[in-house]
Amino acid sequence: MTTPESVPILEALEPGGAEMRRMVAQAMDRIVPFIESLAAQPAAALEGSAELARGLAEPMPEAGVGLDEALRVLFDRATPTGYNTAGPGYLAYIPGGGIFAAALADLIADSVNRYVGVWAAAPGMVQLEQNVVRWLCDIVGYPDTAGGLLASGGSLAGFSAIVAARRDRLPEDFLSGTIYASDQTHHAVAKAAILAGFPARCVREVPTDGQFRMRVDALARLVAEDREAGLRPFMVVGNAGTTNTGAVDDLEAIADLAERQALWFHVDAAYGGFFMLTERGRQTMQGIARADSVVLDPHKGLFLPYGTGAVVVREPEALRRAHEADAAYMPIMQDEADFVDYCAVSPELSRPFRGRVWLPFKLVGASTFRAYLDEKLDLAHWAAERLRELPGIELVAPELSLLAFRYARPGLGREELNRLNRDLIGRINARQRIYLTGTTTKGDFLIRICVLSFRTHRKRMEEGMADIEDAVRELDRAR
Amino acid sequence: MTTPESVPILEALEPGGAEMRRMVAQAMDRIVPFIESLAAQPAAALEGSAELARGLAEPMPEAGVGLDEALRVLFDRATPTGYNTAGPGYLAYIPGGGIFAAALADLIADSVNRYVGVWAAAPGMVQLEQNVVRWLCDIVGYPDTAGGLLASGGSLAGFSAIVAARRDRLPEDFLSGTIYASDQTHHAVAKAAILAGFPARCVREVPTDGQFRMRVDALARLVAEDREAGLRPFMVVGNAGTTNTGAVDDLEAIADLAERQALWFHVDAAYGGFFMLTERGRQTMQGIARADSVVLDPHKGLFLPYGTGAVVVREPEALRRAHEADAAYMPIMQDEADFVDYCAVSPELSRPFRGRVWLPFKLVGASTFRAYLDEKLDLAHWAAERLRELPGIELVAPELSLLAFRYARPGLGREELNRLNRDLIGRINARQRIYLTGTTTKGDFLIRICVLSFRTHRKRMEEGMADIEDAVRELDRAR
Repeated sequence: MTTPESVPILEALEPGGAEMRRMVAQAMDRIVPFIESLAAQPAAALEGSAELARGLAEPMPEAGVGLDEALRVLFDRATPTGYNTAGPGYLAYIPGGGIFAAALADLIADSVNRYVGVWAAAPGMVQLEQNVVRWLCDIVGYPDTAGGLLASGGSLAGFSAIVAARRDRLPEDFLSGTIYASDQTHHAVAKAAILAGFPARCVREVPTDGQFRMRVDALARLVAEDREAGLRPFMVVGNAGTTNTGAVDDLEAIADLAERQALWFHVDAAYGGFFMLTERGRQTMQGIARADSVVLDPHKGLFLPYGTGAVVVREPEALRRAHEADAAYMPIMQDEADFVDYCAVSPELSRPFRGRVWLPFKLVGASTFRAYLDEKLDLAHWAAERLRELPGIELVAPELSLLAFRYARPGLGREELNRLNRDLIGRINARQRIYLTGTTTKGDFLIRICVLSFRTHRKRMEEGMADIEDAVRELDRAR
Repeated sequence: MTTPESVPILEALEPGGAEMRRMVAQAMDRIVPFIESLAAQPAAALEGSAELARGLAEPMPEAGVGLDEALRVLFDRATPTGYNTAGPGYLAYIPGGGIFAAALADLIADSVNRYVGVWAAAPGMVQLEQNVVRWLCDIVGYPDTAGGLLASGGSLAGFSAIVAARRDRLPEDFLSGTIYASDQTHHAVAKAAILAGFPARCVREVPTDGQFRMRVDALARLVAEDREAGLRPFMVVGNAGTTNTGAVDDLEAIADLAERQALWFHVDAAYGGFFMLTERGRQTMQGIARADSVVLDPHKGLFLPYGTGAVVVREPEALRRAHEADAAYMPIMQDEADFVDYCAVSPELSRPFRGRVWLPFKLVGASTFRAYLDEKLDLAHWAAERLRELPGIELVAPELSLLAFRYARPGLGREELNRLNRDLIGRINARQRIYLTGTTTKGDFLIRICVLSFRTHRKRMEEGMADIEDAVRELDRAR
């Protein structure tokens, strides 16, 4: 028989208080210089990536190497190449940022490690997350009865919305269901639809106008044609800030049509949603509150580190029905209407406490986020005006904080222009003060500027605009 | 025109180095006493939960309240009720734990905030995650060509496996596809199937034997009958440690049948998988390496805080095909065979760096996890032997570190026994040194003991067993 006395006492995974403090201090000795050097780091450094990665491959360590060596690997070896996503010059894709308050929240959440998958297991911490969900509903303009949840990112948050719509509006055999989204919609929507079981053809692409906004007349026609053809239109996706050019669809007009056609109206506000905290954002995104579901990403508009998306829904029961399942060993779910068991309304059972959204709000308040978001709007509009003054620049002006442009040198055909602008973006990025990415939409290659890092202030924007002007001049000299 | 000079300089979201160190120290002043008091905290405290939660509801704060007040809310108000999931007495459900090294890793990951959704954006950090994926493949016994990924939890990791199987084995119209899983399978499988588009009836329940293991003869018959009926059997799920009683299916026999029937063989090793690090675990889970996909949860068997599951697959291309999508603004994906873009093989596009698995391995090595896991096996087997000595106890012996029992007082019918054991578990938990949960399987209510917290050592197990014996005596006195 095994006696408990024969079981050795293990301590390696439980450092004492002094040791934990020492570990954290040692990590901070790396984190602080890293953050303080962000502005001086190149906006992106891609040389030698393959060698670096291959050099880091190693078999599972049988023995530990200690914190010194692990930090050396993380900070000296793993981070020198890549995009400086946390830095002030990162204007590519949709910037995240990574405010320190969120890092602190994760340190606490992981250490406390309460289980927030069911309400009864951590009623207080679940409530703090529910507070955040409520605040997001308020930001969107939803009624008191609305609900939602925090997920690991916008793609999975959007996936929950699609499954909710599917199970709310379609029968079990749903393969003739059709989803409508503009040709500018983030591919996460099409991907989520595929994951949820829809053949790719079920996502119907609606053409856009000259400002890259969904043509609602075309939407109406497509829906009518599809009904005629025996398909089952059930969902339309509006954009509140596309990833390509930042376009905001006419959400009121889409809401009207969705109402008439009994479509689930989903808004992808992953990028744009938090601008609802600002006066200008609310004007730009009018109609968003009429949506059945809205995705917004705290790791974008609240400047959090990667890892948190959110979905809010007008009727929380739809989320519950979408994720329904049952098992004998499941914890007792509470049945008070004002509490929620996250495992019953989301794909996750075990899940981390996502207090990383709550803590920053408590530390600095919504007013701080509003001020930063207004700053991003100001900076983007200033950049647009500056670009407008440059001869030959064609501009897609910002509706929020994302703009796109190309250098349309006269006399060149589309392919030549595309080559020219790929050349241009390379020259801009080579200066390593800002990092931009492009997109090809309707055949044209456009250079994008997305101002969303909390570390991007006017100085870096001025430097970036100077780099763009220099690069254009350089290009002209090189003809 | 907006001039950049008119944009105010904002600093609230960027504390300086000294301030960040102060914030972390202040958090540690709460974290350390919390962790040091875990053993003295009740194993679960459920009284007053509703009042506590309702008292925490509050509108979005316009101004910040600072760290002192936020920490007070988190530690003094939000945590006093709930399950003490991080404590040594937590033997309920599947314990997580929450080793501090993982908290440290998240602090670093959030602060550095590199983007690991595409390889090019953070080649070094992606490689560190890939190292972990490779180590998990080694643990399972997979060949060099295998792959996989870290997800936010086991449910989503399993979802990716189901979608991979669906797209690998079924046509676009997949609604006649059928999945086979024992009646002991975690409901996450059925839920993931529903999310992936399958009607609930597509998940076929296979009966189990007296040890709660899938009856492979019944599986063969069901598959044959379903084919006969025009259905399309395509996937079978084996259990490597059920949540109900810890049962491990005969994975070799299932693999044989899966091979003959061309079924995708998935193993749910969310709970049991990491016991493959131990000699006993490898013997118990023979055949697991023949699976097409395996889910294992670092927030269970590696004692991590909640928030990390993993799926490994024999053919990584299946994951890629399952998650395929495309967009003009997507970053350039690399095409070296030994690198991976996580956004191309998982539902997530933005995702956090999940170095929280890597850092603990580097700090303490696999040998430490092996020693702790062996300790859990020892403690569970010791508990089983002790329970066997108690008159009237019926035992489901542990195959790994999970056992189940009931007090079968002679002369009672099933309903009376179930009531008696619900009474018993209440009396055990009332002592607040251990927290157990039950399950009703095949009509019988069983009390479960799952030894998996890294903080559960022999002393707490002895106390827990003493509490169980006392509670049985108390029950006998109360008849």
